[in-house]
Amino acid sequence: MHTEEKETGRLEAFSDGVFAIAMTLLALDLKVPHLGDRASASELALALAQQWPSYLAFTTSFGTVLVMWVHHHGMFRLIRKVTSGFLFANGFLLLLVTVVPFPTALISAYFGKPGSAVASAVYAGTFVAISIAFNLLWRVAAHERALLRSDAPEHVVRAITRSYLAGVPLYLLATVSAFYNEYVSIGICSGLWIFWAVITRNK
Amino acid sequence: MHTEEKETGRLEAFSDGVFAIAMTLLALDLKVPHLGDRASASELALALAQQWPSYLAFTTSFGTVLVMWVHHHGMFRLIRKVTSGFLFANGFLLLLVTVVPFPTALISAYFGKPGSAVASAVYAGTFVAISIAFNLLWRVAAHERALLRSDAPEHVVRAITRSYLAGVPLYLLATVSAFYNEYVSIGICSGLWIFWAVITRNK
Amino acid sequence: MHTEEKETGRLEAFSDGVFAIAMTLLALDLKVPHLGDRASASELALALAQQWPSYLAFTTSFGTVLVMWVHHHGMFRLIRKVTSGFLFANGFLLLLVTVVPFPTALISAYFGKPGSAVASAVYAGTFVAISIAFNLLWRVAAHERALLRSDAPEHVVRAITRSYLAGVPLYLLATVSAFYNEYVSIGICSGLWIFWAVITRNK
Amino acid sequence: MHTEEKETGRLEAFSDGVFAIAMTLLALDLKVPHLGDRASASELALALAQQWPSYLAFTTSFGTVLVMWVHHHGMFRLIRKVTSGFLFANGFLLLLVTVVPFPTALISAYFGKPGSAVASAVYAGTFVAISIAFNLLWRVAAHERALLRSDAPEHVVRAITRSYLAGVPLYLLATVSAFYNEYVSIGICSGLWIFWAVITRNK
Repeated sequence: MHTEEKETGRLEAFSDGVFAIAMTLLALDLKVPHLGDRASASELALALAQQWPSYLAFTTSFGTVLVMWVHHHGMFRLIRKVTSGFLFANGFLLLLVTVVPFPTALISAYFGKPGSAVASAVYAGTFVAISIAFNLLWRVAAHERALLRSDAPEHVVRAITRSYLAGVPLYLLATVSAFYNEYVSIGICSGLWIFWAVITRNK
Repeated sequence: MHTEEKETGRLEAFSDGVFAIAMTLLALDLKVPHLGDRASASELALALAQQWPSYLAFTTSFGTVLVMWVHHHGMFRLIRKVTSGFLFANGFLLLLVTVVPFPTALISAYFGKPGSAVASAVYAGTFVAISIAFNLLWRVAAHERALLRSDAPEHVVRAITRSYLAGVPLYLLATVSAFYNEYVSIGICSGLWIFWAVITRNK
Repeated sequence: MHTEEKETGRLEAFSDGVFAIAMTLLALDLKVPHLGDRASASELALALAQQWPSYLAFTTSFGTVLVMWVHHHGMFRLIRKVTSGFLFANGFLLLLVTVVPFPTALISAYFGKPGSAVASAVYAGTFVAISIAFNLLWRVAAHERALLRSDAPEHVVRAITRSYLAGVPLYLLATVSAFYNEYVSIGICSGLWIFWAVITRNK
Repeated sequence: MHTEEKETGRLEAFSDGVFAIAMTLLALDLKVPHLGDRASASELALALAQQWPSYLAFTTSFGTVLVMWVHHHGMFRLIRKVTSGFLFANGFLLLLVTVVPFPTALISAYFGKPGSAVASAVYAGTFVAISIAFNLLWRVAAHERALLRSDAPEHVVRAITRSYLAGVPLYLLATVSAFYNEYVSIGICSGLWIFWAVITRNK
């Protein structure tokens, strides 16, 4: 029992490290405009303002990964022990979390330009993949309550199963809508993390 | 009670991770001068010396985030439990902390050049936003002592409330003064973290 | 006894930090294609697709470091105390782990081009070095059971010794085969971490 | 007493985070040679070989920071409590540790070229500064045994004081010798961390 607790602790700390680093690396996508030494203050202000897709993408990615961290957190509170299968399912989720700065940089660079549809679809598609990984991780833990604590209430377990499943079609919708209107696509992504933050907050 | 303690522990560790990474990433803004293979020793020395705004901005940002970490530390010692609202208020603060390398790179690139006023205003403005986030976080915890430990002395709680409020107008002053004199603006920012470090040290 | 436990704890946390950061920095090798503002959606999609060696290298490196972390994890469960020699053997392993993003970037840049053989050999060669470091670390701990817990079963200790030794010739094979066929070389590297993940999973 | 222990724990974890990140970021200084798509395997091999100063600088910096981390580790085992003064002395040390990737990149870029003397002097000079910060931190803790555990043996405390003092003149020698011969300068820096690793190992 003692060893099991320690096990979960190290995995949580490791996962938290990856979440924290991935979130902090997002800020590296905020680029200083290169205007040369003679750029006037108003030119710099304009260049900074024109980078708004970067700021939107940064905030959306940061918020989404933060909400995921909170959920990861909540999931681990119900978990009693860790198996190798769970370790690798968690590793798959972390792989996708570390990838997030890449589509964020992509949408920052191409939003509102001809390549916008592809960049937005890749961005939303990353969150489809992360949602699937979350469901996979939860399934490894919760299927026949294999890794759950005995005091984890069954209705809470079911509520989590339902709420995780909802993420996949919603991000799929954002991915498909990228090919029609990139503003709708990023809007869905931004709306989703705010929605989840608000409902989590009220619980 | 046991679960609550663990909860705070994981949030502290996660926050510490973000603070530590954000502080370390600041050093990526220190750029090696690209002078080509034939640059003489004195040309390299000169180029390094001319980068002094980078060093000042790095030190100021590092010092400011360090002082914030110390305060974050002190705040958590008074906190008994964590709610989802507190989690997201903390997330908002962390978002702004991870952003710090961006205005630091901006002021490093444009200080003393025509774009200086805008770069300095964005730099000081980031700390206005962080001060507001700190006040928000503290308010969520301390309003009607919602999340505080019962043994947290009321006069300490009030002293913290007062000292956090002071940050907002002081950084606003630095932001406004950027448009008149960039040296005054960065001087206020540098002075503030040193002042806070000294008064914290004497407590 | 109490101090020894704490000792191992800090070393594990430090090592986990290095593993987590090295894994997250791998994502910095995923580059946004620079096609200019007028690139069409299909040009962007094509450019992203042509970067497939980056994605393969990223996944292989991430998976390999993840498997190593799981093994590092398993090794530490058998260890009772830490000596300075073990600390530096562990440091040598961590040095090589932090290096991984470099050969990953190298193979991403040169795979399928004339420089491919050298890039692939350096990539696989890095894992030869890491395998050697792992064996060294384990030898410091397990030779005459110097640092092992008294309750670590002898057959488990021997099984670990055997399984670690297998890594060296397999990665050497990948290194040599890089000069004949780069696809075989990266294929061995990818196959190995998947194989290890699967056998670990079934244990 | 309980609160004090927790205090030290959080500071250690935070410091470990900064050490771990700074060590991992060093690897970002290892650059992939940009030779274009038609570079032959032998051209790539040559370009990689010519980057040897990068590898030497990376290894020296990693080894030096690792030895510092081990010493930081050893120091904290003797420490009973943390004051704000100690917190900021530790912060000053961490600031310098995060800076290390900068002189490492500098010496990687300019070693063996005309700017070599300045780059080597800045490199060694960074370690002079870090040695001073270490002595400062230890002084805050050990002066009149202010923050030490009561069971910390006096002869151990004195031995640490002596061994830390030795670092300053040795790195000063490396700094001065940079202006005569850069190989001697980096040789001293490399020799020192290996020497410290070996004597620590034998203790």
